[in-house]
Amino acid sequence: MSGEQRARRYAVIGTGAVGGFYGARLQQAGLSVHFLARSDREVIARQGLDVRSKDGDFSLFPVAVYGDVHEMPRCDVVIVALKTTHNGLLSELLQPVLADDGVVVMLQNGLGSEEAAAAVVGAERVVGGLSFVCAHKLGPGKVHHLDYGQVTLGAYAEGYAPRGVTAAMAAVATDLRAAGIAVEEAEDLLQARWRKLVWNIPFNGLSVILDERTNRMMADPAIRALARALMEEVVQGAAACGRTIPETFIERMLEHTQNMIPYHTSMKLDYDAGRPLEIEAIYGRPLAMAAAAGVDLPRIAVLTRQLQFLDRRRRGL
Amino acid sequence: MSGEQRARRYAVIGTGAVGGFYGARLQQAGLSVHFLARSDREVIARQGLDVRSKDGDFSLFPVAVYGDVHEMPRCDVVIVALKTTHNGLLSELLQPVLADDGVVVMLQNGLGSEEAAAAVVGAERVVGGLSFVCAHKLGPGKVHHLDYGQVTLGAYAEGYAPRGVTAAMAAVATDLRAAGIAVEEAEDLLQARWRKLVWNIPFNGLSVILDERTNRMMADPAIRALARALMEEVVQGAAACGRTIPETFIERMLEHTQNMIPYHTSMKLDYDAGRPLEIEAIYGRPLAMAAAAGVDLPRIAVLTRQLQFLDRRRRGL
Repeated sequence: MSGEQRARRYAVIGTGAVGGFYGARLQQAGLSVHFLARSDREVIARQGLDVRSKDGDFSLFPVAVYGDVHEMPRCDVVIVALKTTHNGLLSELLQPVLADDGVVVMLQNGLGSEEAAAAVVGAERVVGGLSFVCAHKLGPGKVHHLDYGQVTLGAYAEGYAPRGVTAAMAAVATDLRAAGIAVEEAEDLLQARWRKLVWNIPFNGLSVILDERTNRMMADPAIRALARALMEEVVQGAAACGRTIPETFIERMLEHTQNMIPYHTSMKLDYDAGRPLEIEAIYGRPLAMAAAAGVDLPRIAVLTRQLQFLDRRRRGL
Repeated sequence: MSGEQRARRYAVIGTGAVGGFYGARLQQAGLSVHFLARSDREVIARQGLDVRSKDGDFSLFPVAVYGDVHEMPRCDVVIVALKTTHNGLLSELLQPVLADDGVVVMLQNGLGSEEAAAAVVGAERVVGGLSFVCAHKLGPGKVHHLDYGQVTLGAYAEGYAPRGVTAAMAAVATDLRAAGIAVEEAEDLLQARWRKLVWNIPFNGLSVILDERTNRMMADPAIRALARALMEEVVQGAAACGRTIPETFIERMLEHTQNMIPYHTSMKLDYDAGRPLEIEAIYGRPLAMAAAAGVDLPRIAVLTRQLQFLDRRRRGL
């Protein structure tokens, strides 16, 4: 990092709901933010970014938006907010934009993002980011932030060894907090990722398979029981990786979901838009990590197979 | 049974695709058959029964059809071809129509039908029937028989103890064969029912959950793997009940399904028509029987929960 002398320069790779929301907040707080966008680049260049938020709407103009990573300046912090299904592009995307002493924040779902980034830039330059936000894209450069918004950061080390709070991670946390984002600094990234999966594994998958919102699912006793059984399997998977998640966390998540506003999960939004589903990150890698530790997660495996089928059919594959 | 002196008189309780098809075949073969129908009674009384079959179309007129079981003559063989979801009606339906020395043939899906009938007429008067037929109702009194047609019969004894081939069961087999139906006489009814579940548990449920036909599911590697895993759980459930199903049977079923004509399962037809799904018979009882023997079937439990939700939602419950 470049220290506190000058403001850190940010790149946001992927200007969808998540990248758009956090990037806009950082720019609003006065930081220099450079956005990579694909199809939305021209609209954002012309009209800027619009955030409709439960915390107050705001618009930004001008916005530094690029269609090609080679046109971007080198940045101290590169936030990757792509869908994990695009992680095959990381090697071409990260090298040109990452400053020599910069860090990459993998603001993605599921497991495995950090391993993918570490293969490109080295483990010591990778920070994991977990966003807890209900947000979706209303159109190019237009984000609707419905609820939540917290980010959990955790430094990555080879094999997901707990690395504690690093200076790079603390610096990003400082900037996000200055932008009004609640940040949790996790000492153990893998623990944080498994904890998030306790919610994502049941509800992302079931929302697609059953074509339903969280509130309607939680109102049904069969789905409440199934969600609980799936959550218990996630806890078993975490335990297989040496991470303890207390049983009370499951209760909290179920209660929390019952009280959420009716919500389409990110996987449901992807499905309805015909985008590839993040099955590998949310299901495949967790299953594989548990299996490598000798633990079978049969209920999660059922959802995975069903999603693989639906994903292929939806995209005509 | 009344012996071979006079032809046995049949009642068919439930004149849908299955009851209509087998009943029509028996009448066509010269037997006296009495049909109970609900909403279709008037049309059948006026127009008779029409069977469009891959073995040759035929029509029957007149047909002895009744809307009330009290108007029916006492019958030597009462074939129950209702959906299992109507088995709460068995006590009112069976008593008035069953001859003193008659038998009840429970031509239904899943597990538990015979227990329900035995509670009304006594175990020794109950025969289990498994139909392997692709058929659906085209309209009142109109059946489309697409493929197969074999029936497996098995005598019931308390707790599904194997009872061998009984005289009553052999007599029904004789009549069905005279009507051109292939019949297998099973010495162990529970074994036969678990074997049928090897197919029904994966494909009935998945066809509803994924809204898909068997051929499209079998073309997908994820669903082939899932179907196999579900079949293996059915084999485990059977084993918990002391019934051995060889691994080769799974291979045969998978291959068989791959070569079937594109097919909507009976549960999918029920779902699309807004009828209650036979979840308890095909999933609930098998899960409960395995659980009573201390065996958990987690993949099957996932399908069960999903189906319970979809069934309730479809019917606005």
